[in-house]
Amino acid sequence: MHVTSRANLPGRHPDRLLPAEPERRGIARELYEQVAGLPIISPHGHVPAALLAEDRPFNNPAELFITPDHYVTRLLHAHGVPLAELGVGAEPLAEAQARQAWRVLCEQWARFAGTPMKYWLEDVLPNVFEVEQLPSASNAETLYDHIDERLGDPAYRPRALLESFNIETLATTDDPLSDLAHHATLRRDASFGTDVIPTLRIEAYIDPAHASWPGNVSALLEATGRDDTFASYLAAIADRRAYFSRHGAVSIDCALIDADTAVLHPEQLAALYERARAGEATAAEAKLFRAGMVTEIARQSQRDGLVITLHVGSLRDYDRTLYEQFGPDRGCDIPLTTGFAEGLRPLLGELGEDPGLRLVLFTLDESAWAREIAPLAGFYPGVYVGAPWWFLDEPEAILRYRSAVTAIVGFGKQSGFIDDTRALCSIPSRHDMARRLDCAFLSQLVVEHRLSKGEAASVIRELTYELPRSTFKLTGSGNRPGGLPIDHPKPKQ
Amino acid sequence: MHVTSRANLPGRHPDRLLPAEPERRGIARELYEQVAGLPIISPHGHVPAALLAEDRPFNNPAELFITPDHYVTRLLHAHGVPLAELGVGAEPLAEAQARQAWRVLCEQWARFAGTPMKYWLEDVLPNVFEVEQLPSASNAETLYDHIDERLGDPAYRPRALLESFNIETLATTDDPLSDLAHHATLRRDASFGTDVIPTLRIEAYIDPAHASWPGNVSALLEATGRDDTFASYLAAIADRRAYFSRHGAVSIDCALIDADTAVLHPEQLAALYERARAGEATAAEAKLFRAGMVTEIARQSQRDGLVITLHVGSLRDYDRTLYEQFGPDRGCDIPLTTGFAEGLRPLLGELGEDPGLRLVLFTLDESAWAREIAPLAGFYPGVYVGAPWWFLDEPEAILRYRSAVTAIVGFGKQSGFIDDTRALCSIPSRHDMARRLDCAFLSQLVVEHRLSKGEAASVIRELTYELPRSTFKLTGSGNRPGGLPIDHPKPKQ
Amino acid sequence: MHVTSRANLPGRHPDRLLPAEPERRGIARELYEQVAGLPIISPHGHVPAALLAEDRPFNNPAELFITPDHYVTRLLHAHGVPLAELGVGAEPLAEAQARQAWRVLCEQWARFAGTPMKYWLEDVLPNVFEVEQLPSASNAETLYDHIDERLGDPAYRPRALLESFNIETLATTDDPLSDLAHHATLRRDASFGTDVIPTLRIEAYIDPAHASWPGNVSALLEATGRDDTFASYLAAIADRRAYFSRHGAVSIDCALIDADTAVLHPEQLAALYERARAGEATAAEAKLFRAGMVTEIARQSQRDGLVITLHVGSLRDYDRTLYEQFGPDRGCDIPLTTGFAEGLRPLLGELGEDPGLRLVLFTLDESAWAREIAPLAGFYPGVYVGAPWWFLDEPEAILRYRSAVTAIVGFGKQSGFIDDTRALCSIPSRHDMARRLDCAFLSQLVVEHRLSKGEAASVIRELTYELPRSTFKLTGSGNRPGGLPIDHPKPKQ
Repeated sequence: MHVTSRANLPGRHPDRLLPAEPERRGIARELYEQVAGLPIISPHGHVPAALLAEDRPFNNPAELFITPDHYVTRLLHAHGVPLAELGVGAEPLAEAQARQAWRVLCEQWARFAGTPMKYWLEDVLPNVFEVEQLPSASNAETLYDHIDERLGDPAYRPRALLESFNIETLATTDDPLSDLAHHATLRRDASFGTDVIPTLRIEAYIDPAHASWPGNVSALLEATGRDDTFASYLAAIADRRAYFSRHGAVSIDCALIDADTAVLHPEQLAALYERARAGEATAAEAKLFRAGMVTEIARQSQRDGLVITLHVGSLRDYDRTLYEQFGPDRGCDIPLTTGFAEGLRPLLGELGEDPGLRLVLFTLDESAWAREIAPLAGFYPGVYVGAPWWFLDEPEAILRYRSAVTAIVGFGKQSGFIDDTRALCSIPSRHDMARRLDCAFLSQLVVEHRLSKGEAASVIRELTYELPRSTFKLTGSGNRPGGLPIDHPKPKQ
Repeated sequence: MHVTSRANLPGRHPDRLLPAEPERRGIARELYEQVAGLPIISPHGHVPAALLAEDRPFNNPAELFITPDHYVTRLLHAHGVPLAELGVGAEPLAEAQARQAWRVLCEQWARFAGTPMKYWLEDVLPNVFEVEQLPSASNAETLYDHIDERLGDPAYRPRALLESFNIETLATTDDPLSDLAHHATLRRDASFGTDVIPTLRIEAYIDPAHASWPGNVSALLEATGRDDTFASYLAAIADRRAYFSRHGAVSIDCALIDADTAVLHPEQLAALYERARAGEATAAEAKLFRAGMVTEIARQSQRDGLVITLHVGSLRDYDRTLYEQFGPDRGCDIPLTTGFAEGLRPLLGELGEDPGLRLVLFTLDESAWAREIAPLAGFYPGVYVGAPWWFLDEPEAILRYRSAVTAIVGFGKQSGFIDDTRALCSIPSRHDMARRLDCAFLSQLVVEHRLSKGEAASVIRELTYELPRSTFKLTGSGNRPGGLPIDHPKPKQ
Repeated sequence: MHVTSRANLPGRHPDRLLPAEPERRGIARELYEQVAGLPIISPHGHVPAALLAEDRPFNNPAELFITPDHYVTRLLHAHGVPLAELGVGAEPLAEAQARQAWRVLCEQWARFAGTPMKYWLEDVLPNVFEVEQLPSASNAETLYDHIDERLGDPAYRPRALLESFNIETLATTDDPLSDLAHHATLRRDASFGTDVIPTLRIEAYIDPAHASWPGNVSALLEATGRDDTFASYLAAIADRRAYFSRHGAVSIDCALIDADTAVLHPEQLAALYERARAGEATAAEAKLFRAGMVTEIARQSQRDGLVITLHVGSLRDYDRTLYEQFGPDRGCDIPLTTGFAEGLRPLLGELGEDPGLRLVLFTLDESAWAREIAPLAGFYPGVYVGAPWWFLDEPEAILRYRSAVTAIVGFGKQSGFIDDTRALCSIPSRHDMARRLDCAFLSQLVVEHRLSKGEAASVIRELTYELPRSTFKLTGSGNRPGGLPIDHPKPKQ
């Protein structure tokens, strides 16, 4: 009976996101069946390693689904709900607070019509939490109790959830000075089947415009026992990269306002470093130093092989008042017009042909996909087109992305899907969404006789499993046999 | 027989603009039936109030369909027809002139294939004017006579037309110094069911780069009995806003080349004012003053609650020669790359969380929809995504708009459809077009199981009726009972 | 048997690229049948006139399909294949080299999934070369031998191929100092049915930032017997234009980084010329001179009527190292954000209403289509929207182009399809692709009742045949009877 009821929920419908036209739908279905059960590769994201290492039960539905998810909090805020009312920044929440936040979400559920947040949650609630109704003002308390009860069950602890999601590799994002103890803890758990690997996030250590740059550099030099010279600074970064590599990292992440790079004389870069350290660098000098450092980071990748993910063009923490009150990553990033061609030219002129370089480019200005990113990835062996990100990680934009870049680079220079999320429970839903959309896209190529069914079957497997692995040099098989077709998502019994 | 013949016209087909795929078409039809008869809310447009107040018969078909419609005249001009040959700027036209203009339109009808101008006129001609043929060189005279005859019928006077269109609210755009006598005249007509409200158009009073700024400010100060100080200037603007509010205005319109705003010290702004008044402001100073004034306008909205519509990024009257010959708004606006994030940051940093702020953002650079406008509206309670405008007010762009913004903001932070037209007869056609396209868009979400039919039914009603009302704070019901499903368009018997 | 086998190849499927939905597919098929056999008009492209004049057999499959085609070489390079391994820059290739290049292409064939290169080659191989298999690692040698054998057949010489493709007019692109002897040779061949016309490519003669500008100008002055003054320089350009016109040219091509134009006082322009000739012009002066010269080129078109094609916004030869090693046009152009409105305003303010001006605008930044190019072409009689080009010459982008510009300009101010290719064998495939996509686009307008079937039939014929002819003033009928529906492509017996 419950099963019947759940079967009517949109998140249970086998054809969700597949195209309506019957011929295309049939082809898309066939393709989807071939990859639905493949393990998830998540080479870039923001689930905190501590969450998995500590493996404590989630406190309550609000701290699972609302407060850490800036996709959700920003839209509620846009409809006039103060962030404080949602418990943002007040974690851990008292039960009354958590219930209030959950109630607001349920009451405002209709606001999410047409958004991926609705799609993901309507997938997660029935498929992971056995919820049998869509959220609404009238069932808010019932759903809260239902989910809250599940959260007390060991099967709903973070590590157990991750395992049930069939995630082969999950990358976290980490401060360069992290000791990565949580990752070590996870590796020691022989029964835990997901390979959780760190990622070194660098921008706050190379951009003097970052408020924390002076303190970060001092801490970096101290942690690596280096003196305050430019050579030591570079070596200290290399030290931490080596440390991350030894702990399984395959990539370094860099989020910047633009894609500027520069090839500077070492002495010039050193002089800029000294001025920035002395707090005397002008804005232009700070910018030039940062541009030069992006090239240095790429040079270090020539040597240690770390993939560089470049996330460009977002005015982060746009609202300074809210930033000061609630801290970063509360949903108020506003993208800008973003170019890549001119900014990357110095770096690519120097290192573009080097087999050690691997640069995955992400934008929030989708006009750059076909205009700059795909032409760059369609020429340089080391450049890849990063998957749609943040505001663009949704069905319509994902299809626009495929449409914009595929003709220029084919599939093999696209990164494969990247969830980039801190919302743990949404990971399988996001990857499943991407697989369905890729099947939808491929079904069009098949019905238009641009791809045979056999070719489409190869491509969908490549996009789902091989590409994210090869793009991020995930050559190992992790802790589990890779590629086994395991059912996904695994409904709890 | 006539009815049969008209039924074959494209403008009579019940499924026009609905998707071809049968499952989607069925859903779209069902949705459309639910909103086809809802009253029209037109919270921003350019029908002159005088036209309705004076309620004189239209002079002839050319002055109804051609000379005032820069959508039509610009495309004929692009095909080599001189504006003078169409009677532009020569109104009132002698009959020979009017016939000539109409003949040109009919002869060139094939040039409009694929454009919304064709779609609108092919809707209006049979549905409002009982025309039974599409325009062509051979029937130009017949159609002219047919329409001209109708124009002599009282049922085709402006006010009667508006009523037959089932328009609940119609906003005009007015000079701040207008006495709004025409609006008063209309309110006195108890039998007239449309609520015609004024809108204060501000840019020529706050932008010293505007040729008419010096004269406008002098006139403003004189009209409000104020002396020439910055404080008086601000107060004079507030006076006119209050006057407009008392006469039913709910919004203030501002059309600028960019979205720059600034938060300046009052003394700095006053000094810039004085320099501008003295004709001594540099271009940069004039620009900074304008940016500061946008913030002042928003501060005034905190107090009086007027919604601000910001139309940004159009190089108006691009062709100076034609501008000097024919005046403004002849179709030669050319859009520019347009950003919003950096420009609006000062204003939003100051007022973004204020419940009194309401800012509806319009762009002609559609890359800004998903990149900047939707992220802003998806965070700030007071920011809304304005509907596609001018060149983008057409089926393909409207669907691209829904696709670009819905995932980011849902439906509730979109403005609802805005016709923004001076072509009175096209109003029902434009709104009907928007309703059909929204049904088409929603039908896709339904067949992909992203929205239930019930949810889609709520959304289509919200988009059609509630949203334009709530976005523009149209809380009253106007002069007629709101929301009654009245048949649209009402064919004359 | 072979025929059966070929019928299963994607390049033989009658419905390729047509929409899946049955109603639309039926309409698209009907439309396609009406234009499939029309002669090809190719008013802008890069097939070398020498190739046709000399009419030597192609050396081998690699020099036909790989080394001259930067669409193919750039993507192989992006997958790590060094350009040298493909024989780029080493022509004529020894047989072993040619076989190696071909083998690489076959081995990497899967990399082309989703690209137009795959589509074109899968059309050309069976339809022109009677190949019965798709390329793969296992059949590389067999296919090489098969094609190589055909290349020895007189029917596969360049001129014979061109004739079999039913090309009515083919424009080449030529250095202004070319004697156009090859074109004369072709005109003397009474049995050759294609009208091969030259195009004058101007940018390296008007842009002092071009490395070859000083030498080019000296050569130009010398060739025309002029002294080194600005007046002579202008006259020398006019001389060459006249020479090209007498040899059949209808257009002049200009590829620039931006669309800047300027209206300068003749003395100012002359002074800039002198500084540039003396090697003393600053970058800003060189840019201003170039902007002024674009206006001069347009002024000359007022007099001689040559159409100007403006290709804007590509950072050419982005990778300097490869440029120095392999020369220009190796696939490493990277587009930039591109505006047209502000840049063209001076020129259009001066000449916009002149009936002699004809400017066809091409961009690689597709956001400019609806934002700037279509609004310009939708107002100015002399401005046309150029077809999608380079990275955008592919099915998805072509449909996005139609969607972006049609509502704004209708069909009559679009240029018609332009192949812009140096890959001779792909010409019929590219035009056939464009015809199919146009039918697909029109079928949507028909099913949505925005265009009748009859109107769509007129439009498809206009787009295919009349528009490219009228846009480029190809008023003559060439050497063959124009407009005859000849089967295309003609399979060899």
